[in-house]
Amino acid sequence: MTKMQYCEIEAFMFKKMNDSAHDCKHIYRVLGMALEIATHERGVNDGVLIAACLLHDIGRDEQNRDSSLDHAAIGGEMAYEYLVSRGWRHERAAHVRACIETHRYRKTSQPQSIEAKILFDADKLDACGALGIARTFLHAGVVSEPIYVLNQSGEIEIDGGGGEITSFFQEFTYKLRNLYGKFYTKHANEMAKQRRDIAIAFYDSLLQEVKAAHVAVQNIDLILV
Amino acid sequence: MTKMQYCEIEAFMFKKMNDSAHDCKHIYRVLGMALEIATHERGVNDGVLIAACLLHDIGRDEQNRDSSLDHAAIGGEMAYEYLVSRGWRHERAAHVRACIETHRYRKTSQPQSIEAKILFDADKLDACGALGIARTFLHAGVVSEPIYVLNQSGEIEIDGGGGEITSFFQEFTYKLRNLYGKFYTKHANEMAKQRRDIAIAFYDSLLQEVKAAHVAVQNIDLILV
Repeated sequence: MTKMQYCEIEAFMFKKMNDSAHDCKHIYRVLGMALEIATHERGVNDGVLIAACLLHDIGRDEQNRDSSLDHAAIGGEMAYEYLVSRGWRHERAAHVRACIETHRYRKTSQPQSIEAKILFDADKLDACGALGIARTFLHAGVVSEPIYVLNQSGEIEIDGGGGEITSFFQEFTYKLRNLYGKFYTKHANEMAKQRRDIAIAFYDSLLQEVKAAHVAVQNIDLILV
Repeated sequence: MTKMQYCEIEAFMFKKMNDSAHDCKHIYRVLGMALEIATHERGVNDGVLIAACLLHDIGRDEQNRDSSLDHAAIGGEMAYEYLVSRGWRHERAAHVRACIETHRYRKTSQPQSIEAKILFDADKLDACGALGIARTFLHAGVVSEPIYVLNQSGEIEIDGGGGEITSFFQEFTYKLRNLYGKFYTKHANEMAKQRRDIAIAFYDSLLQEVKAAHVAVQNIDLILV
């Protein structure tokens, strides 16, 4: 890929990502981690990988407008059409499309090519470790999701009501905690393991800090007359 | 303090805290930690302490409406008037007012009584450790503050422009990191030190994860032709 091709694709990505500068930083982190993973793999098509990373979330706006849509499927198609319009061969543009289509967790349609596997892993790494926790809290702030909820006895609710995610504690227990080990490439798997420790340590501390405070409040009946 | 008095003050607090359930949990954590600290101190007036904890942030709404106002000063006055109207003696209500007035960081007017010192410490403990980080990110999500900003060379900006806080990295470096050790009571000081390690470890990991990704992106020039 030439520098000019990169800048063109980057400009197209910016145009489609109206959301915020915040989301664009995610794109660059995914690109960076993908390039890092690629140095540990053989026969990676750098041009396909870079295009797939830059464009992997361009369908987000469509999904935000209509939650029945899948940003991976839509983004893949948008990327394919754009790249073909810029003179890319059908097979190469379709390769990028396949990478984008399979970057989400799904039981069906898993990543097949090494470029698709690297994009998947780089995107999931951004949900691991301290970064995954930071991003989850930022999103929780936007949608007014609390750190935890209390049940009627004033105890911290982790198991939640029927599996519905209503707090960070549930988000961590049912999603973030289970990311580690679901990687396709060896290097991403190793990096995820390194990031696992801080995520678990943070969650354990948070739970302990919160519990200490609420247990003490429950003891207030010993003071009130 | 009787159970009925507690419930009345709690109901008054709820009426004044329109903000969210999220902020009310902060109130209960402060109350819980204050009760815990109080078990390590002598001669604490439980009734004054409990009222001061429950009511310490009732001036927040006023400050949110007009940022030139100080929620500690306003909240103290609101609490004083409410408690006197409920039959509290002037001196006791004024004691609660003084606790609330001095619960913020300020060079002038520092907490004097043991109850004021405990409220101050319990409130600051809630900004320490994993909880402090979680609350900072939730707020950042609400006001669209990013985890970090990049300078024109694509490097992570920590020192920021002229001390203005524009990211979590700056918030941590200039505020959260410096909370530890500024406590009045021995027990709060010990708890803060225990919480310090996880906060520093989390920040260091986050910085390392983000740097790894962006350094790799900067190397993209080696790939582009």
